Amino acid sequence: MKPELKVGERLDDLHLKGLMIIQNPLQFCFGVDAVLLADFAKAGKEDKIADLGTGTGIIPLMMYGKFEPKEIVGLEIQPESVDIAKRSVAFNDLETKIEIRLGDIKEAVNLLPLAYYDIVVSNPPYMNSGNGLVSSGEAKAIARHEIHCTLDDVVLAAAKIVKVGGRFCMIHRPHRLAEIFVTLRKYQLEPKRMRMVHSFANQEATMVLIESVRQGKPFMRVEPPLIIYKEKNVYHDEIFDIYGYNIGKDS
Amino acid sequence: MKPELKVGERLDDLHLKGLMIIQNPLQFCFGVDAVLLADFAKAGKEDKIADLGTGTGIIPLMMYGKFEPKEIVGLEIQPESVDIAKRSVAFNDLETKIEIRLGDIKEAVNLLPLAYYDIVVSNPPYMNSGNGLVSSGEAKAIARHEIHCTLDDVVLAAAKIVKVGGRFCMIHRPHRLAEIFVTLRKYQLEPKRMRMVHSFANQEATMVLIESVRQGKPFMRVEPPLIIYKEKNVYHDEIFDIYGYNIGKDS
Repeated sequence: MKPELKVGERLDDLHLKGLMIIQNPLQFCFGVDAVLLADFAKAGKEDKIADLGTGTGIIPLMMYGKFEPKEIVGLEIQPESVDIAKRSVAFNDLETKIEIRLGDIKEAVNLLPLAYYDIVVSNPPYMNSGNGLVSSGEAKAIARHEIHCTLDDVVLAAAKIVKVGGRFCMIHRPHRLAEIFVTLRKYQLEPKRMRMVHSFANQEATMVLIESVRQGKPFMRVEPPLIIYKEKNVYHDEIFDIYGYNIGKDS
Repeated sequence: MKPELKVGERLDDLHLKGLMIIQNPLQFCFGVDAVLLADFAKAGKEDKIADLGTGTGIIPLMMYGKFEPKEIVGLEIQPESVDIAKRSVAFNDLETKIEIRLGDIKEAVNLLPLAYYDIVVSNPPYMNSGNGLVSSGEAKAIARHEIHCTLDDVVLAAAKIVKVGGRFCMIHRPHRLAEIFVTLRKYQLEPKRMRMVHSFANQEATMVLIESVRQGKPFMRVEPPLIIYKEKNVYHDEIFDIYGYNIGKDS
């Protein structure tokens, strides 16, 4: 079956169980952060998952491809992204597993069931207002800057819809880590597992993966650093594993 | 000059500008954590430094050896450790630079000048009561467990004696990181720089170095991971640099 592509869109192979995603490069293409988060979050086959700010649905698609959880809902405020994500889900025949819903994260508590999800994931906008220029292109700007929702909004929504004992997994920028920890604790999400992401082993971290547990007991594990490149233009083997590429086997 | 060694004591070479330290292996010997903290904290020649819980004075000695700051005071609650530290300072002829004072961290605000230090450092007890068995030997137990002071006590003391804009550098266990961040912020010490310490590159972090700034602006840098061993029993080159050993030149 050929998906209905609109002007400017392309169909990209996720190299993961034949899954494909529709993207419009002029609007927004998923980055390594979404891929790392989908892998970091992990899931079991009985898990119910919510993705806050799903964009074009990359995290639901990758988490389904990797873990085949019971159900995934992706909430997204931008109608164009919702439209693309829904067509991607349909193209992959995953409508019974992945639901894409139009809506604001600040309204998540009215749109999604409370204390219901085993796992909530989010790759939220990294930039708080005032830091950095707002990038051109509305879809990109909304995905990267806290225009529609702040870190506090995202964490509050996650804390309400995740089960007690359930997990909230997020990827963010290390420079906001103090604020992230304080905000998680404010909503009784206890940081339990963290992983720093460095482009090279001898450089500062550029991203941080954080798992918190609703009403979890304080005790955090810091996993081995995730290093993206072993040398210039050469990915570390782990990155290929995370992307799900079968090196040398996949065309 | 030969120092006065008491029964059970030995004199150890710090391999750093000829500095020596007296230690009693049955009581407490410094570990890699003190060495890493002294290096992480850094200092300028005009800096005034306080070390909260100085033990046998390893951090003042190493910081003096590396950075030659203006003055260092080490506060320590155990009289036996104070006695050893004072004799080490005397042996190294550093009485005009390093002062060792007997006292409780909880009393630091009455013992030391407020808002005075450029840098406060601390390698506090890692274990909160209830976690882990209390190790045998009182000196070791006091150094490792929060018997005399809690994390909150240490951070409060640091926040009071450090200048506005001055730095507080600490080494601690990653499993308490959420509590550490929340406590630092509680006392207006903003986390600004962090480094994870891993024994091996593919293992979880075992220690974390954190620098906070009194009334600093939120923005944290996460430095490259510090990996202790490149393979079993083989230190990474950086560890030799931090210890100050001249590989191949130093006997």
